[in-house]
Amino acid sequence: MGIFSAAKPESLMDLLHHNLKDLYDAELKVLETLTEMIAAASNDDLKAGLEQHRTETEGQVKRLEECFKEMDMEPERQARAGIDGIIKEGNKMLAEAKDDPALTDVCIIEASQKVEHYEIASYGTAKAMAIELGETAVAELLDATLKEEFKTDEKLTDIATKDVNPAAK
Amino acid sequence: MGIFSAAKPESLMDLLHHNLKDLYDAELKVLETLTEMIAAASNDDLKAGLEQHRTETEGQVKRLEECFKEMDMEPERQARAGIDGIIKEGNKMLAEAKDDPALTDVCIIEASQKVEHYEIASYGTAKAMAIELGETAVAELLDATLKEEFKTDEKLTDIATKDVNPAAK
Repeated sequence: MGIFSAAKPESLMDLLHHNLKDLYDAELKVLETLTEMIAAASNDDLKAGLEQHRTETEGQVKRLEECFKEMDMEPERQARAGIDGIIKEGNKMLAEAKDDPALTDVCIIEASQKVEHYEIASYGTAKAMAIELGETAVAELLDATLKEEFKTDEKLTDIATKDVNPAAK
Repeated sequence: MGIFSAAKPESLMDLLHHNLKDLYDAELKVLETLTEMIAAASNDDLKAGLEQHRTETEGQVKRLEECFKEMDMEPERQARAGIDGIIKEGNKMLAEAKDDPALTDVCIIEASQKVEHYEIASYGTAKAMAIELGETAVAELLDATLKEEFKTDEKLTDIATKDVNPAAK
């Protein structure tokens, strides 16, 4: 498995390949980040929600591996500045809030929702490309994850407004 | 107007202040990026959509200035790694695709949707904080922009699936 490889895209298919590699790298980085966030979280619902999302993310990694297989590719990671920046931003927020458990929970939700939305944009883009290219099985796999990301985002909003924001006020 | 200032947040109100500064910096950077993307776009609907969004973004900057005023703050920018990374990623994608106008349009849409979703997460977070803190006028201003960002994202998906992706196939 190569890491950080890149070749200039020359077709929509090349762009789809790039996107799968980007997403594969992003999900594997998010898995590490989730473990740190679960350790830092105090609110029980938030901790449980993140734990569930970590299990889900492991499934999303497997789905991407199925996508690579469908397209006769080896799983490959390609680093992108967007997800790296979002993770860096999240780490900085957590470091700034670390002495206050209630504010830490607020920052965990903000950081997680920025990750979710980056993934929503990425999976949505890749799915549209797969549909256009007639890669139906790949599009379905990407769509299954996309739906999970939307649900996770909604659940985080719910925990923030009902519980975590009031506790931090 | 200060740039890149930061102080450790000690309350939910501090986090809201941080978010307003982050968003102010993000929108001003997005304005510059939009001008570059409009110049690089070929598809007429995409070009027109981005031009409309640039005008909208100018209004969003003004709304943030109203938020600062509502909270008796001076407008201030605070750089965040997330939006910086997303813009860097977009620039790299455009550089890679620059010899192919159809692929360039695809990349412009992907980069723009990553920006939109970062903003959706950021405005959503800030709005929830403002509601929790009883800052109703600020929450309404943030919500007005949030709705525009959702619409822009939908419009971009539309242009991608109907026109830009088929043209790049």
